[in-house]
Amino acid sequence: MQKYTAEFIGSAALVIVGCGAITMGGLGGVLGSGQPFASLAILPIGLAFGLTVMAMAYGIGPISGCHINPAVTVAAFVAGRMPASDVPGYIIAQFLGAIVGAGLLYVMLAGKVTGYDVTAAGLGQTGWSSFSLSSAVLAEFIATFLFIVVILGATSKAGTTPVAGLAIGLTLAVLHLAFVPVSGNSLNPSRSFGPAVFVGGQALAQVWMFLIVPTIAGAVAGLLFRNKTLEA
Amino acid sequence: MQKYTAEFIGSAALVIVGCGAITMGGLGGVLGSGQPFASLAILPIGLAFGLTVMAMAYGIGPISGCHINPAVTVAAFVAGRMPASDVPGYIIAQFLGAIVGAGLLYVMLAGKVTGYDVTAAGLGQTGWSSFSLSSAVLAEFIATFLFIVVILGATSKAGTTPVAGLAIGLTLAVLHLAFVPVSGNSLNPSRSFGPAVFVGGQALAQVWMFLIVPTIAGAVAGLLFRNKTLEA
Amino acid sequence: MQKYTAEFIGSAALVIVGCGAITMGGLGGVLGSGQPFASLAILPIGLAFGLTVMAMAYGIGPISGCHINPAVTVAAFVAGRMPASDVPGYIIAQFLGAIVGAGLLYVMLAGKVTGYDVTAAGLGQTGWSSFSLSSAVLAEFIATFLFIVVILGATSKAGTTPVAGLAIGLTLAVLHLAFVPVSGNSLNPSRSFGPAVFVGGQALAQVWMFLIVPTIAGAVAGLLFRNKTLEA
Amino acid sequence: MQKYTAEFIGSAALVIVGCGAITMGGLGGVLGSGQPFASLAILPIGLAFGLTVMAMAYGIGPISGCHINPAVTVAAFVAGRMPASDVPGYIIAQFLGAIVGAGLLYVMLAGKVTGYDVTAAGLGQTGWSSFSLSSAVLAEFIATFLFIVVILGATSKAGTTPVAGLAIGLTLAVLHLAFVPVSGNSLNPSRSFGPAVFVGGQALAQVWMFLIVPTIAGAVAGLLFRNKTLEA
Repeated sequence: MQKYTAEFIGSAALVIVGCGAITMGGLGGVLGSGQPFASLAILPIGLAFGLTVMAMAYGIGPISGCHINPAVTVAAFVAGRMPASDVPGYIIAQFLGAIVGAGLLYVMLAGKVTGYDVTAAGLGQTGWSSFSLSSAVLAEFIATFLFIVVILGATSKAGTTPVAGLAIGLTLAVLHLAFVPVSGNSLNPSRSFGPAVFVGGQALAQVWMFLIVPTIAGAVAGLLFRNKTLEA
Repeated sequence: MQKYTAEFIGSAALVIVGCGAITMGGLGGVLGSGQPFASLAILPIGLAFGLTVMAMAYGIGPISGCHINPAVTVAAFVAGRMPASDVPGYIIAQFLGAIVGAGLLYVMLAGKVTGYDVTAAGLGQTGWSSFSLSSAVLAEFIATFLFIVVILGATSKAGTTPVAGLAIGLTLAVLHLAFVPVSGNSLNPSRSFGPAVFVGGQALAQVWMFLIVPTIAGAVAGLLFRNKTLEA
Repeated sequence: MQKYTAEFIGSAALVIVGCGAITMGGLGGVLGSGQPFASLAILPIGLAFGLTVMAMAYGIGPISGCHINPAVTVAAFVAGRMPASDVPGYIIAQFLGAIVGAGLLYVMLAGKVTGYDVTAAGLGQTGWSSFSLSSAVLAEFIATFLFIVVILGATSKAGTTPVAGLAIGLTLAVLHLAFVPVSGNSLNPSRSFGPAVFVGGQALAQVWMFLIVPTIAGAVAGLLFRNKTLEA
Repeated sequence: MQKYTAEFIGSAALVIVGCGAITMGGLGGVLGSGQPFASLAILPIGLAFGLTVMAMAYGIGPISGCHINPAVTVAAFVAGRMPASDVPGYIIAQFLGAIVGAGLLYVMLAGKVTGYDVTAAGLGQTGWSSFSLSSAVLAEFIATFLFIVVILGATSKAGTTPVAGLAIGLTLAVLHLAFVPVSGNSLNPSRSFGPAVFVGGQALAQVWMFLIVPTIAGAVAGLLFRNKTLEA
């Protein structure tokens, strides 16, 4: 139970801080006032997601391993690093945490003095519009694959480095720099699902891709470690 | 006594560098000339606070553990990691350090060739205005809770990681990206109190919230570690 | 074979994420719409390259040492840290990876709804135009020399620090801040060659310098470690 | 001799990369074209200096301890961590390295196609103009004191953390965010002296302060560690 509580808290934190940086912070009044996406702010947004993963890796990692991402849980299972019996509990806790996190963020935004129109200003959801679906699929596949290679490499059976949490978090941050304009750089089914529930519309219509592609990429990366292609 | 000296220096450093970044550095002539808050500068300001905590964690951490925050001291006490007899000395040193730090910063700013009007340009104080009080309370509670989960997790009884200071500092930095526009992202009663003493007005009128909410959030996080909900 | 697979993946990742940050991410619609180089974006671009090296250092480092750069392979060989028999395979995998990475990036960009003109907008290639050839040679020599001193120092025979991957990645990132305007801050023959193949023109005409200078700088740094001038 | 070579290389690197970021990189064509100081660029410039210290800490630290700063050498001597006989050699190597580094940077800038007027555009020198001399003295004293507390704390006799180089570098970076507008955030006599030799004028006229104040602050911090006020 302790493990699932940890995954729930971490998944909620990821949505609150990451999507909070998009809607409340990194872009200031810009997105809230309806202005279009400001590309220069990709770095702070990437750091908001990446360093929250790092934070949780040190905060709850000792308990659950800090997956806070169903694609990571699938990868860990395929790589032979966690028992099948833990998988459903992890994934349920991750989705619940992401939904509750998005809800708490919505409550906070509702306290904006000038009001907050979630349909127009969003909740930090992911999606594609200026790139084709196939580019978005390619982006999510490549980014998730690289992300999970780093996770499984830095926490390999030969011994986890104490820097693993930081390396994993900064990897997630830097992938935003390339892939945010293509697909939003989700790499994480629950992180995409939580906000989509409240925003609806295009975010919900496109959420299927973020449920499927990162999960497949995680399974492929896990396989490379299971069959020793990428593990010493 | 050595411990209290360390906490005093660290708490002063946090206000000088963090609030100094707001008033002298990260925003250039902007805030000093009365221009409104520039949202793109949240990242450097977050790093100013976060990396000063990191700096002090390695500089004075070996002596006092580098709390430099009454909410952290309360959390450490509740989690059963420090004796009650140390608590008052830590907290007094933290408040004195923050006040002296704010005073030194004021002296430095008074040397500005064009003059410095502390009432108009501030001293890096915290507060809320574009969000409601309840949003600000929610922001300070969530942010402090997550911050202290990382502190207690990264320095758990099972063994402190050498990366703890860096992970804790970057966590504080990244929380700014989401919560600065809501409440100023204090998470720290003494960090809010020091500047408020010199700025007065709204900063002093709102300081009660920053004395209470982060302290409660720290106690709650401490409890989760004491009763093993979040500690292995 | 496992080692060459790792070098191939890492070299592809470096081009996809680093050059992807230039063409898709860090500069938003700017470069794609033909606007000139935006100097403020050097930091995110430097981090895109640097932190991808860090990511791969933890992801594939346990397998191949994560050179993903022919100049590093030459330096490691000259310093006496790898057998001559491994050198050709490493270098071939690095060039193949960089070409495939540039190709995948090109495919992703071709999915841009407004189209993508690779001749005009480029593929994150390196080169010099506002500085002379000798300045560019000096920049590439100094930057590569310092980069490889850090690599060989942080992974010295006396024992590799767990922070090595992070230190090496951040070193590459920070060198961009000084040298991007002079030469593009390549320091890596395969990273320059991959995009040049697809962009042609000036990128291909100038690629010889990036094949030669970083390799010589790597050999010089390797020599200082071999003859104990820079190794304890 | 090996130690002095290392200090020479490291001190040259600090000026080339740090001052190179100011004159060639972080500010783009801005400073070169005579535009006034762009406050938003303090973060990249701080990282240029700070992460070069980090880079050299891992590159040459195993040989000389990577002081690359006379104030650090004085502090280490006062704290009882290095023999008096090494001090002159370290300091001479640091000043020579900084002068040669500034010279190499000047050569590189001279290759700018549009020309480079070092009197107008500078060489990344330090100084004060919008703040009074006493504010600048206070800034250099406080910043150097905190910087050296971190250096001596993170490399204390009880055992150096593997993260020390990174923590020290990020501390130097973050201090820029508060103190660059006041004094240029030197904290280092040789880093200020090197560029001043080539720029002359106000930079040379004000260099005395940067020779004296950081050195005194270093000695004071060293004393606190020698007499166990700040060392466990």
